[in-house]
Amino acid sequence: MHQPPPAPQILNSLTPEENTRCRHGLYFQDGQRRVDYVLTYPVKKPGSSRSRRHTSLLTDNAFARSLRRARGPAPAPGPRPSPEDPEAGSPGHGMDCHEDDKRSRREEFEGHLTDMGLELEKDEDVYEVKNGSSVVEKINTFIHKVTEPLHPNVEENRTQSLKHLSYPFSREKQHLKCSSLSCPPGITSLLGSGVYLAAYPLHDLMYEEWASYSVFYKYQPISLIRKYFGEKIGLYFAWLGVYTQMLIPASLVGVIVFLYGCVTVDDDIPSMEICDVRKNFTMCPLCDRVCSYWNLSSACATARASHLFDNPATVFFSIFMALWAAMFMEHWKRRQMRLNYEWDLTGFEEEEDHPRAEYEFRVLQKTLKKEHKSQKAEKEKLTCKDRFPAYMTNIVMMLLMIGVTFAIVFGVILYRISTKAALHMSSNPTTRSNVRLTVKATAAIINLVVILILDEVYGAVARWLTVLEVPKTDGSFEERLIFKTFILKFVNAFTPIIYIAFFRGRLGGRPGSYLYVFESYRMEECASGGCLMELCIQLSITMLGKQLIQNNLFEIGVPKLKKLIRYIKSKRASFQEEEREKRLQRYETDYFLEPYAGLTPEYMEMIIQFGFVTLFVASFPLAPLFALLNNIIEIRLDAKKFVAELRRPVAARAKDIGIWYNILRGVAKVAVIVNAFVISFTSDFIPRLVYQYMYSPDGSMHGFVNHTLSYFNVSHFQNGTQPIEPLYLGYQVEICRYKDYREPPWSSTPYEISKEFWTVLAVRLAFVIVFQNVVMWMSDIVDWLIPDIPKDISLQIHKEKILMVDLFMKEEQGKLHVLDSLVSAAAKEHGGRNSHSPLARSRSIPHTYSNNY
Amino acid sequence: MHQPPPAPQILNSLTPEENTRCRHGLYFQDGQRRVDYVLTYPVKKPGSSRSRRHTSLLTDNAFARSLRRARGPAPAPGPRPSPEDPEAGSPGHGMDCHEDDKRSRREEFEGHLTDMGLELEKDEDVYEVKNGSSVVEKINTFIHKVTEPLHPNVEENRTQSLKHLSYPFSREKQHLKCSSLSCPPGITSLLGSGVYLAAYPLHDLMYEEWASYSVFYKYQPISLIRKYFGEKIGLYFAWLGVYTQMLIPASLVGVIVFLYGCVTVDDDIPSMEICDVRKNFTMCPLCDRVCSYWNLSSACATARASHLFDNPATVFFSIFMALWAAMFMEHWKRRQMRLNYEWDLTGFEEEEDHPRAEYEFRVLQKTLKKEHKSQKAEKEKLTCKDRFPAYMTNIVMMLLMIGVTFAIVFGVILYRISTKAALHMSSNPTTRSNVRLTVKATAAIINLVVILILDEVYGAVARWLTVLEVPKTDGSFEERLIFKTFILKFVNAFTPIIYIAFFRGRLGGRPGSYLYVFESYRMEECASGGCLMELCIQLSITMLGKQLIQNNLFEIGVPKLKKLIRYIKSKRASFQEEEREKRLQRYETDYFLEPYAGLTPEYMEMIIQFGFVTLFVASFPLAPLFALLNNIIEIRLDAKKFVAELRRPVAARAKDIGIWYNILRGVAKVAVIVNAFVISFTSDFIPRLVYQYMYSPDGSMHGFVNHTLSYFNVSHFQNGTQPIEPLYLGYQVEICRYKDYREPPWSSTPYEISKEFWTVLAVRLAFVIVFQNVVMWMSDIVDWLIPDIPKDISLQIHKEKILMVDLFMKEEQGKLHVLDSLVSAAAKEHGGRNSHSPLARSRSIPHTYSNNY
Repeated sequence: MHQPPPAPQILNSLTPEENTRCRHGLYFQDGQRRVDYVLTYPVKKPGSSRSRRHTSLLTDNAFARSLRRARGPAPAPGPRPSPEDPEAGSPGHGMDCHEDDKRSRREEFEGHLTDMGLELEKDEDVYEVKNGSSVVEKINTFIHKVTEPLHPNVEENRTQSLKHLSYPFSREKQHLKCSSLSCPPGITSLLGSGVYLAAYPLHDLMYEEWASYSVFYKYQPISLIRKYFGEKIGLYFAWLGVYTQMLIPASLVGVIVFLYGCVTVDDDIPSMEICDVRKNFTMCPLCDRVCSYWNLSSACATARASHLFDNPATVFFSIFMALWAAMFMEHWKRRQMRLNYEWDLTGFEEEEDHPRAEYEFRVLQKTLKKEHKSQKAEKEKLTCKDRFPAYMTNIVMMLLMIGVTFAIVFGVILYRISTKAALHMSSNPTTRSNVRLTVKATAAIINLVVILILDEVYGAVARWLTVLEVPKTDGSFEERLIFKTFILKFVNAFTPIIYIAFFRGRLGGRPGSYLYVFESYRMEECASGGCLMELCIQLSITMLGKQLIQNNLFEIGVPKLKKLIRYIKSKRASFQEEEREKRLQRYETDYFLEPYAGLTPEYMEMIIQFGFVTLFVASFPLAPLFALLNNIIEIRLDAKKFVAELRRPVAARAKDIGIWYNILRGVAKVAVIVNAFVISFTSDFIPRLVYQYMYSPDGSMHGFVNHTLSYFNVSHFQNGTQPIEPLYLGYQVEICRYKDYREPPWSSTPYEISKEFWTVLAVRLAFVIVFQNVVMWMSDIVDWLIPDIPKDISLQIHKEKILMVDLFMKEEQGKLHVLDSLVSAAAKEHGGRNSHSPLARSRSIPHTYSNNY
Repeated sequence: MHQPPPAPQILNSLTPEENTRCRHGLYFQDGQRRVDYVLTYPVKKPGSSRSRRHTSLLTDNAFARSLRRARGPAPAPGPRPSPEDPEAGSPGHGMDCHEDDKRSRREEFEGHLTDMGLELEKDEDVYEVKNGSSVVEKINTFIHKVTEPLHPNVEENRTQSLKHLSYPFSREKQHLKCSSLSCPPGITSLLGSGVYLAAYPLHDLMYEEWASYSVFYKYQPISLIRKYFGEKIGLYFAWLGVYTQMLIPASLVGVIVFLYGCVTVDDDIPSMEICDVRKNFTMCPLCDRVCSYWNLSSACATARASHLFDNPATVFFSIFMALWAAMFMEHWKRRQMRLNYEWDLTGFEEEEDHPRAEYEFRVLQKTLKKEHKSQKAEKEKLTCKDRFPAYMTNIVMMLLMIGVTFAIVFGVILYRISTKAALHMSSNPTTRSNVRLTVKATAAIINLVVILILDEVYGAVARWLTVLEVPKTDGSFEERLIFKTFILKFVNAFTPIIYIAFFRGRLGGRPGSYLYVFESYRMEECASGGCLMELCIQLSITMLGKQLIQNNLFEIGVPKLKKLIRYIKSKRASFQEEEREKRLQRYETDYFLEPYAGLTPEYMEMIIQFGFVTLFVASFPLAPLFALLNNIIEIRLDAKKFVAELRRPVAARAKDIGIWYNILRGVAKVAVIVNAFVISFTSDFIPRLVYQYMYSPDGSMHGFVNHTLSYFNVSHFQNGTQPIEPLYLGYQVEICRYKDYREPPWSSTPYEISKEFWTVLAVRLAFVIVFQNVVMWMSDIVDWLIPDIPKDISLQIHKEKILMVDLFMKEEQGKLHVLDSLVSAAAKEHGGRNSHSPLARSRSIPHTYSNNY
């Protein structure tokens, strides 16, 4: 029965000696039975101001962590030591129930556990809960499978061929028997009330075949992940795998589109015209006074770069990506169905969640309050009225947070405008020539940093707001939290980008009538290549920055750091109690790991990335490639994190990825509209089309640049805004040009919006309608053509159901047969007695069964 | 056991004597056992050229009917007497299998039936198949319930309170045992090969509480309908009920919107301006030569009428109706769920359909062909290659049919143009003044007649095309048929309306440069009030006409007529065989009824109506009211039809309304876009808005009419198109006006499209985008806010599942207990012998069970 302990790589940041020592902690004292689950609680030694070493350590952090996902409002509003504070002394202090009460409740709970056939072992002040022998066998076969040096994919195939017929186990019956008032308390409520400090199973294995960068090209061993971490986490990794796989064709096409741009850049007539110095378009100054007139040919490089992202192929690419998103959804639905089948979840239905401890506490409070008044102790619920203050706080805070995001974006705009103005005024010519680059780079970095900081803040705010709401069940808590976090993080990530795509350069006014912010700063314009280039830069910086810093640095670095700190602390503490040092058990070293805090951050990260991949793909065809590169690392990184940096999560069942699927659908829907607007309003696609088919004298693009530039008579500048160096270009300028569709100064309505503007606008809007509807209907058709359940799986499910019915029938018939033979035997021996015996009654049962199936 | 026979109202068109006589037909010869099902086949009397009276009658029509839904391609391509031809003589002639073979197959089949416990009775040449006694009991309780003079709603409530715990019966096991090669032939394939001529159960009851116009205000007794006709028809009537109920608020709001138009018509500035004779807008002639200039004030009445349907309230109403449609879907989903629960369908899954006889025949043909070549008799399927010709025919025919629709619409346009021109030339002044009315009325009636005729043609074409495809199962056949029929009928119903809404008046050109059809007829324009008025007229005529003629006349009249014809024929035949007349049985009179041909026509009618209610609701707010009035009658009319005019359909199970739900969703989606376009392009809503906020000097609507009319210099008329009576208005006209946004003759680009046109167009398109997206997201939110499963139902389902598990467990434990006592008893008597007995083995079974649940 005894298995060789697995390689001690989990604790690779601890010293090897400790690893060797703590291996024993995987087993009970007899070295035979494995530890499945750990419960911790504090025991105060009489006369000591702190609880004992190990326990006290477990106490401080484990308690705070275990509450991190389940924290409710403070039971009493008065000031008391917060349980989150790791140095607040013995945590039992602040709780409402006394130490004696806790001990008795603990004993009762453990008594129930032993009654149910679990084996407990007390280690100093820690119990170990142990399942029966069948689990050992399961783990054995499991370890056996993992150590086989097989390709994970092969392993999965083999598993599939050995599919067992099964029916989901359900605990519904137990719940029925125990109404929530008379029910003995479960572990969640015991944790909630502080009777136990933490509850977690132990890490006992990791995967070389999975959590390693060296196997990045392999499929993930999904069925193993599922066995080790449970269906919920298995589904996350399966989803991540499908997403990453689907990114391969998307990034391929994206690269081809980008290359098409590179190849055709020399044939692009508009950028040729811009670069042509002979054309000599004298442009109006970009800022008041200090800037002078400039020649359009100086924007040649930008114009050529713009073409890389702004060519007809990007229109095709956005349509492709919209269909790709629809395809991805369908593919995932099918994969999920297949996994459900393979994991025997087809018959499984999610159980009704039990109310959270915080919710029950609030209800109890309410009931007690009512009892004081009306003397009757009915079962109460939290009504809308009870929750009204929380809802109001939620709405106000959400709006406030979104307002903060907008304010910060505006702040960055102000920074850009003012810095640009200041740098333009600088006497240093090098500074002046680098103005644009300096300002752009610093602004983008500021934006990124702000996004990163606000992301953390918003995560905390969303959690706080959800706790305020006191949702009834864990499921409801998670959904509400995800919804809020998603909205805040989404707004945070995309507001600056939306500003650049749709507002920048449109609010600036025209020469002679610019829009001024705070009466001194002119609103910024886009570079002459169009705003698409700037959008592209902003997108790539945000996306790459978020991925590199947030995902990799934060996700791996911070838990490691925390582990180290906790380890150092424990080291320091252990010097005082030397004798315990020798017996550092595996369950003790696992304590240094971060507790598992749910999959929300992982999903959230990927959904935001999905947003980058789909929302503005028209302006940045390389986004799928970046996402793909990131995800190849991300899978292994998450794997490492789950195996080595977190306490092993309790396996949880799930049939699907829940609310995330709806969010994905929502993002994909929004993406269609956003891309339609990016193509028609941010890119030059529509103006070019209109010029070519309505205004061009010869049907070619020649003369397009001239057509997009309006005329301005420099004598119409407002006083004090004329350039101080009017002869900068070496000649006297009377008419300068600016990018807009307005009437020339010599028209009867000078500087009015021209007919061309309205024509282009109408075509732009028509394009949006056509694009949105065509793509929407195409997605719907894709949705409709691809069946949700793969054909072979639906056949298999059908077959299995028939087999199951057959099996039941046969067993019933077998029993009936046995009964029959017994009855006839009994009749032979005690003739005539069987007419009213229990046997006769029981014989009718099989008939009922055969009718029911 | 014997029940009093129900009142003989089913055959209310037959004479009372016959009714009395045929009551006996409901029972077997013993008068005790009820007839459940009838099988008919022809028996040839030696020496007679026709088969015997009763059978021959059953033969001719019953055979044709039973094949109507299941007809495949002719087994052999050569010419042979068609079985559909009622006078083609003995129908056995043309079939491939001989009379002897048929008889033996019949005998085999009936032998199987008797083996299964069914009771048969032969009546001359007809067998009656009879179920066991439990069915009689069921029918008794059922009759008991119906005759109770209760409000149907109360009845349903009572039924609900007595909900039984149940689990769906499944025949899957039987199918498993009988692979389709070795399987004895089922009734479908026997029907298909002509061994039997028809198979139907008998009508044995009708409902005063339902199929009567006097109870139109009552809820339908849905649970009774379900018990009598089965779930599928029950769901149809439930759906129809929900739809009708939902139409009540819609028609209320529609009437309010219409009344708002009536009340505000006197405050409408544009129509005031049109009616103001002092404004004196001289309009350009409406046709070449014979028409002259006219004064806009003569269109005063039309303008005022237009306002009834073209006011800001209609915008609100279209948004309301879009949300209404979303709400209706959600409401139906919930109702369906509730019915599923009440009818114990929650656990029911639709069984795999068996292949249709026609499909199997084709496969057999293919196999035989292959056998000739390769000598192996594998099980074949029809591949895409086999079906390719059918698919091509399908596509070509569908396009052709749609082309025919377009051609006919164009033909009606030509009729309108040419008639108008001809009537204008008439010398009779009365004719000339009534031109518009005459042309409009006749054109609309022609349109309606064409739609009605084509509807019948398209129904037949769709059926023919689907038969060509040889779909594998009945389900697939039905879906394909519905899809094709829907597309054809939808195009047929809405093409003329779409032409009027979006194309009419936009293709006419401008004065001096009109568009001519066949070089002589000028394309038609809309009346001065805008096309909305004409759209409204066309809509109401089509909708009302379709409802009155198609639904009521065809649906009730035609079956009655057919019944009468069949009855007269049988009368004539019976004169020759007098002796049989006395014993006209119920199953014989039921033969005069139409066979049940599926719910497709009923649903189709309602879906097209749903299209009228949602698609163009912006132009016709009274559509929901008309639909409501129609449906109140329709429910009872359908009920009467099902009870009295059709043979009682075989009860079929269904969990939902199938493909119809998807079609409804599709129509609702299209409706949003169509309404957006109707509001922005057909109505004057956007031009008014633009005038008021962009061009009006004082922000009011004064001057709007002048703004929408362009100028035309009459000297620019093409030669020969000038009016022959230029002084018709009594003064010399130099400049006439026409409705368009074009440059005036004195501009530098005369008659070019003006800036105003582009401005209005841009705003129109922007409105479409905003409207579509706002309504779409609002619908999505409605969809998301309303849970698909009502809370109480989901709780109930959960509870029932627990109860079911409990029940199983208890029964298992009971059995275990019995076994235990037996084992111990056996052990006592034969000590030591039980260690290897079957008893010991069977004891392990209950454990398996408890793990599985």
